[in-house]
Amino acid sequence: MANINENYLNLQGSYLFADIAKKVADYQAAHADADIIRLGIGDVTLPLVPAVIDAMSKAVQEMGKAETFRGYGPEQGYDFLRQAIIDGDYKPLGIKIAPDEVFVSDGAKSDVGNIQELFSEDNIIAITDPVYPVYLDSNVMGGRTGEAVDGIFQKVVYLPTSAENNFSPEFPTEHVDIVYLCSPNNPTGTVLSRTRLAEWINWCKENDVILMFDSAYEAFISTDDTVHSIYEIEGAREVAIEFRSFSKTAGFTGTRCAYAVVPKEITGKTKSGERQALNPMWNRRQCTKFNGVPYIIQRGAEAVYTKEGREQTRTNIAYYKENARIIKEGLESIGLTVYGGVDAPYIWLKTPENMTSWELFDILLEKVQIVSTPGSGFGPHGEGYLRLTSFGSRENTIRAVERIKTLQF
Amino acid sequence: MANINENYLNLQGSYLFADIAKKVADYQAAHADADIIRLGIGDVTLPLVPAVIDAMSKAVQEMGKAETFRGYGPEQGYDFLRQAIIDGDYKPLGIKIAPDEVFVSDGAKSDVGNIQELFSEDNIIAITDPVYPVYLDSNVMGGRTGEAVDGIFQKVVYLPTSAENNFSPEFPTEHVDIVYLCSPNNPTGTVLSRTRLAEWINWCKENDVILMFDSAYEAFISTDDTVHSIYEIEGAREVAIEFRSFSKTAGFTGTRCAYAVVPKEITGKTKSGERQALNPMWNRRQCTKFNGVPYIIQRGAEAVYTKEGREQTRTNIAYYKENARIIKEGLESIGLTVYGGVDAPYIWLKTPENMTSWELFDILLEKVQIVSTPGSGFGPHGEGYLRLTSFGSRENTIRAVERIKTLQF
Ligand SMILES: Cc1ncc(COP(=O)(O)O)c(C=O)c1O
Ligand SMILES: Cc1ncc(COP(=O)(O)O)c(C=O)c1O
Repeated sequence: MANINENYLNLQGSYLFADIAKKVADYQAAHADADIIRLGIGDVTLPLVPAVIDAMSKAVQEMGKAETFRGYGPEQGYDFLRQAIIDGDYKPLGIKIAPDEVFVSDGAKSDVGNIQELFSEDNIIAITDPVYPVYLDSNVMGGRTGEAVDGIFQKVVYLPTSAENNFSPEFPTEHVDIVYLCSPNNPTGTVLSRTRLAEWINWCKENDVILMFDSAYEAFISTDDTVHSIYEIEGAREVAIEFRSFSKTAGFTGTRCAYAVVPKEITGKTKSGERQALNPMWNRRQCTKFNGVPYIIQRGAEAVYTKEGREQTRTNIAYYKENARIIKEGLESIGLTVYGGVDAPYIWLKTPENMTSWELFDILLEKVQIVSTPGSGFGPHGEGYLRLTSFGSRENTIRAVERIKTLQF
Repeated sequence: MANINENYLNLQGSYLFADIAKKVADYQAAHADADIIRLGIGDVTLPLVPAVIDAMSKAVQEMGKAETFRGYGPEQGYDFLRQAIIDGDYKPLGIKIAPDEVFVSDGAKSDVGNIQELFSEDNIIAITDPVYPVYLDSNVMGGRTGEAVDGIFQKVVYLPTSAENNFSPEFPTEHVDIVYLCSPNNPTGTVLSRTRLAEWINWCKENDVILMFDSAYEAFISTDDTVHSIYEIEGAREVAIEFRSFSKTAGFTGTRCAYAVVPKEITGKTKSGERQALNPMWNRRQCTKFNGVPYIIQRGAEAVYTKEGREQTRTNIAYYKENARIIKEGLESIGLTVYGGVDAPYIWLKTPENMTSWELFDILLEKVQIVSTPGSGFGPHGEGYLRLTSFGSRENTIRAVERIKTLQF
């Protein structure tokens, strides 16, 4: 009689995008010729850049010839990619990362979901509210959260993040062992400042807390003095694991490549009080339950770091960033309050007149046929906000803003 | 203070392939011009077939154009691939599988490693001895095995599998909740008969045991009346999860695609005695911690099921199977006892004269420069056996056999 992992029963339904899809479908059914513009989903739309396409085309051909065919590769990723990551993402920042601290994977979702396996069930985790749901759900499955009462997990420490604290959460006041931070942030589109991140690293060191630093939107940073890696902060190697992804950097959402950096200094504790390095634990985890990223895809990711790849992906990011500017400035021009959208592809719109997130969602859908994401879907402190994304086409983005401008609040 | 998952400390070192590599490197250092033939590792060598290469080339081009670009796909795999799997692997056997029972993944290693998450820590697992190590190691990490004493985990039920029982393990006599079976088997190269699998399914039903059925080498089956899917057996949908992979079927070891079938009938129990279906649990697991297989790769996997893809991959399998026959018959011709090699790419050689696995390994390396895998590396009951693989080139396979024939035992 196999007993199930009953922690799964504590998971809350993840109906956000299903609910949105249903509302949109219902609307469309009732208004057959409605011209709906989708600014809801956090997925890229521009095609892969030529440098990546060329590299993958070449790699596909290699796989078809005996002399260049590749079978199982290293679970941690090919050296060519680990080195390209170090040379491209860390060396320019003056950060020293060793190749065996870089673990190439099929996605930041996998990595941030799987990393909690390295820890015992009794750790207390802190997440921001609102939040990218994987940090929470993976810990629910891992038994670290207890049950939810009215959607709030009893053992989780929630860090409210809203305009009230300038989207920079306070340190937890209760005991925590592991903190998840995401900067640039999904869903708020805001970043944590260098100063604040330095305070976090200090706080983590003082309190022996591990920081899971999700930097999936790093490529969107343009503000001076915003850190591009947590390891720009002194001491971060002792407490922080960094997650990066090619999904938003290079349009790899359907191509699947990411990486985690697990520095050798970072440790957890055993019950008997000994320190145990996490790097060999993650290595063992990956070698046991993962067989590596496809060779073809790794060659594509490598190409992101070539001169052409860099220029081409930067052009795409600039395109999305310009969309974000158009949305932000357009909404501001009619007196709406918006956050984010500068160092991230997300615009976090404060609902006017104390509307709920869903009320504003409905207005945008019904009055101007725009699909957004209600902030309350990301956590209680997302209530009163709405997420718009800059991943649409320029044309649709401009049309969407013009439509919103016709609304009277 | 983050506490680590101390179950990781119970993991045994996985030194088998590292030890082999060291011995080979040492030998090569001492014999610079030695012409070493590698028949040790379970990795394919023939390039991907043209149908797969063409499909992936096309998919790469699609990813480079706005009209055909794909972002995030369904976590469970694209419908086109799920349907191709059903039509290609199940319909011809008269088996009904619904698309939402098929979960496309990046590898059977991931799937057989991750599936244990659905179960509580107190389940008792049974594995064969010898065994593909992932079943065991993933459960060690999951806390289901206890500590190892002399390499034997105290809570695990081992099912000895050797020539003594015709490589068909007995049912466990003690209580177990989950059994892992692999047929065609790695490392023994043998298959379980239809009759025996039917007995297993009955036994699982009677004892409320879940069967994890790893069928990664299904494509190598040629013996009449050997089942190609566990669901050929009546009642299997209620107790068995099936794991399949394109790795050995179509040379995808470095291309990464596999799938698991989780029928809707299969359930585990909650502590309060209710039945909980595993299909929605696995769906939730995959949606939370996985973002799908690359579109390009899924198109490659789909092409395996086209007329050309089938013919071309069958030709490759036939090539490896002919190698297996050459090894098997060659060794038998000098009086050695070999198992497997008919429905699998592995030949399981009984060491002559009560040699240990490593003793025979050393002889093959030093006297005839052939790399093999000592059976004892796969578990205590692998002692006295040696694994040879048929994944080498025809030429090397023939030369290896000729060399072995020169040995006097
Ligand atoms: C904050 C954050 N982290 C991670 C991910 C997952 O990225 P990947 O596509 O690499 O799995 C996302 C994707 O939406 C995200 O928003
Ligand atoms: C029995 C068995 N299952 C699963 C796997 C892993 O296959 P994949 O390449 O799909 O991860 C292997 C690979 O060696 C294997 O021998």
